[in-house]
Amino acid sequence: MEFKIAKRSEDYSRWYGDVIAAAQLADYSPVKGCMVIRPNGYAIWEKIQRALDDLFKATGHVNAYFPLFIPESFLKKEAEHVEGFAPECAVVTHGGGEKLEEPLVVRPTSETIIWSCYRNWIQSYRDLPLLINQWANVVRWEMRTRLFLRTTEFLWQEGHTAHATETEAQEEAFRMLGVYKQFAEETMAMPVLTGEKTPAQKFAGARHTYCIEAMMQDKRALQSGTSHDLGQNFAKAFDVRFQNEQGQLEYVWATSWGVSTRLIGGLIMTHSDDKGLVLPPALAPTQVVFVPILTKDAETVLQATRHLADTIRPVATVQVDDRTNVSPGWKFNDWEQRGVPIRLEVGPKDLAKKQVVLVRRDTGEKQFVPQETLPETIAMTLRTMQQDLFNRAKSLREDNTIYLDDYKQLCDLFAESSAFVKAHWCESPDCEARVQEENKVTIRCVEFDRPQEAGACIVCGKPSPGRVVFSKAY
Amino acid sequence: MEFKIAKRSEDYSRWYGDVIAAAQLADYSPVKGCMVIRPNGYAIWEKIQRALDDLFKATGHVNAYFPLFIPESFLKKEAEHVEGFAPECAVVTHGGGEKLEEPLVVRPTSETIIWSCYRNWIQSYRDLPLLINQWANVVRWEMRTRLFLRTTEFLWQEGHTAHATETEAQEEAFRMLGVYKQFAEETMAMPVLTGEKTPAQKFAGARHTYCIEAMMQDKRALQSGTSHDLGQNFAKAFDVRFQNEQGQLEYVWATSWGVSTRLIGGLIMTHSDDKGLVLPPALAPTQVVFVPILTKDAETVLQATRHLADTIRPVATVQVDDRTNVSPGWKFNDWEQRGVPIRLEVGPKDLAKKQVVLVRRDTGEKQFVPQETLPETIAMTLRTMQQDLFNRAKSLREDNTIYLDDYKQLCDLFAESSAFVKAHWCESPDCEARVQEENKVTIRCVEFDRPQEAGACIVCGKPSPGRVVFSKAY
Repeated sequence: MEFKIAKRSEDYSRWYGDVIAAAQLADYSPVKGCMVIRPNGYAIWEKIQRALDDLFKATGHVNAYFPLFIPESFLKKEAEHVEGFAPECAVVTHGGGEKLEEPLVVRPTSETIIWSCYRNWIQSYRDLPLLINQWANVVRWEMRTRLFLRTTEFLWQEGHTAHATETEAQEEAFRMLGVYKQFAEETMAMPVLTGEKTPAQKFAGARHTYCIEAMMQDKRALQSGTSHDLGQNFAKAFDVRFQNEQGQLEYVWATSWGVSTRLIGGLIMTHSDDKGLVLPPALAPTQVVFVPILTKDAETVLQATRHLADTIRPVATVQVDDRTNVSPGWKFNDWEQRGVPIRLEVGPKDLAKKQVVLVRRDTGEKQFVPQETLPETIAMTLRTMQQDLFNRAKSLREDNTIYLDDYKQLCDLFAESSAFVKAHWCESPDCEARVQEENKVTIRCVEFDRPQEAGACIVCGKPSPGRVVFSKAY
Repeated sequence: MEFKIAKRSEDYSRWYGDVIAAAQLADYSPVKGCMVIRPNGYAIWEKIQRALDDLFKATGHVNAYFPLFIPESFLKKEAEHVEGFAPECAVVTHGGGEKLEEPLVVRPTSETIIWSCYRNWIQSYRDLPLLINQWANVVRWEMRTRLFLRTTEFLWQEGHTAHATETEAQEEAFRMLGVYKQFAEETMAMPVLTGEKTPAQKFAGARHTYCIEAMMQDKRALQSGTSHDLGQNFAKAFDVRFQNEQGQLEYVWATSWGVSTRLIGGLIMTHSDDKGLVLPPALAPTQVVFVPILTKDAETVLQATRHLADTIRPVATVQVDDRTNVSPGWKFNDWEQRGVPIRLEVGPKDLAKKQVVLVRRDTGEKQFVPQETLPETIAMTLRTMQQDLFNRAKSLREDNTIYLDDYKQLCDLFAESSAFVKAHWCESPDCEARVQEENKVTIRCVEFDRPQEAGACIVCGKPSPGRVVFSKAY
């Protein structure tokens, strides 16, 4: 069954759905807003999980699991938090055939249930820091859903840490944002800006929200991960205090941080092309596929291909496509749609010449490789491709980052396209709201490394301490 | 904080709870029936997941993820299934601030939502077999809960496979039961019986339910895993048909199989003792702990200990307990409660003699090991301990497996204790129900390898084709 993918230039949104369908990554489910992550999509999530989990453990974190259900009263203990999340909640009112005394909310995030536990776990400074992560499903009711990017149920990890001092908590929030940046850039080959959300955009209940923001191919931003400095808000809401070294009782300092299956949406929209999915080698469940050309001497060719596959297993994950009911051309198309980084073709002529035909998924570039140097060539090509994908995405972002000082120019630009527009902002919520209402763009972040540059707010002309990043976003 | 654990001989149930509390494996949560799996408990679950996932993948399975919510109407499509699960369901009636048109059930198991997807994924015999597993949380409303053994929400894996023929599906159901047995015995060191559930005890919607059953230390049975031959029941309920090689439409054949966090309860009740948790080496997140005796020359001893720890990292996961605020004796007790298989003590005298004191958690046996042979000794001791734990558990089961032919003897036995009682049964549900009502015991399984032995039913005296296993159970 051949699958025709829409062109990005004609209908980006349809292209996105087509890439997912062609690669069999996910499906809409019969349950409104929920998705089914198919084996090809879940295999990518497993690679993401493994890589992130290693990074979390290397920074001293351990995993745990907290209940799916949260009593409604818990959510209400932190005022901003309930205001932010209550409208998105799914509510269980009946259990075991009876109406519940208190409704239970299906967790939209776990700060409240976790801090109700931390109250029992933390007594002394010796119990701190507490560095816990959870891999879980969460539910936020959504009206307009899009596979991976916005679904009612999604999979994620949420770190929840407790610290003795404000400084330690701040350092942790920055550290984990750094882990996210490292993962996004090195493993996903997806360059990201790092910065702080404006007060209007921060997490409900946080003191500061830090984020990584990536540019998709259509120049819209994708918020790809957030790390929150929660101050003492949740410690106060759940009365979590500890005895410090001097014997005094103090409230605990907190952070939380998370990334989700949304990252798979980011992966698709960073690298894929009109032929279908393109996966960076570091996240490809299969990195190399052999397509033997079984026109004549089929058995000899197949044997030789299997032998060659064995020679590169030490440097790559490999599949041999030995299907006999479809043509080589059909297979080429099939594996391109699935995003496998390298295709190797082996036919009778190649065997005679002791060579293999290597085709890169990202560039389509074709080269003849002597069989004896195949393992080194594969290892090198995977490394190069990983770096090239990152460089290409970074160039796209740089080419579409525009400095503007005139509000009309900003409006004109966003009226017909998107970009990362760096413009001055006076820090007033009114100006922020006006840009959003008139252009459907948001301030993505106040970058950590923005130059100190006095200027005039692009909206009202009042003094601004520096430029912020405006963009349309997913 | 020292934790006093109840004796098994005095109060087995309290002992179980104390072991979990002392090792910080899990907590009851503020949400009725739900548990919090603490980092020490979750680390064991991660080891279980990794080992099982490897076995599933080695037998050709892939992972996917299906929605948490199931429309109530789906559950009703298979008559037996809804009858079995409806009374245990948690029901979401409100989402996003509004009453839902159709209530959603939080999955108690996923056959219905998965088979509604398989309908779209399966057209031809070429799409079969479909071998999918899911790691997920499920909810079954429970009135009487016990940590790990019976909780409203639990974590598990559920395999759901689709096959072209009845034989293939039957083979799959047996294969996965074999995987469970292998995992239970080789990795958990927990011997299990394998057999079939009686019709009264089978899964709601299955044609046959196969199970592994383990004996706990108090001689009660723990159903530790099940594998179901679902026949064409779910294919018919969701109209899943495929075109066979001859071009005819046929209903698909199905299996499902699962194990859960309940296994951790089984692990505890198979190996642990009055001092606390005992973990088999294959599932111990930390296999070896060094306790340096820091009475004098503390810095030298600590340095030497760290060096020794490095020498055994290739063969074991190691921790060095360098805490200075607690005594060595306190540490010994602490690590015993946490179940670490091997403790190594290193003091100034040991350094002088170029030795280490090795203490096995299961036997308490102490030996002096020359430092130069430490890696080999550790590797060997871990292997031996894994085998010894299995052998000890198997002996317990053999010593408490009793052949009875007299109903009064059976009643007397179960009136004051438990055992695996092998007795004849005529296969009538009435006799099965009577034994259960009068003794609170169930038929655990009809063993696959029971001898063909004609006899008289222990209840009614009518002809019986062989003995079945009666026991009290968790």
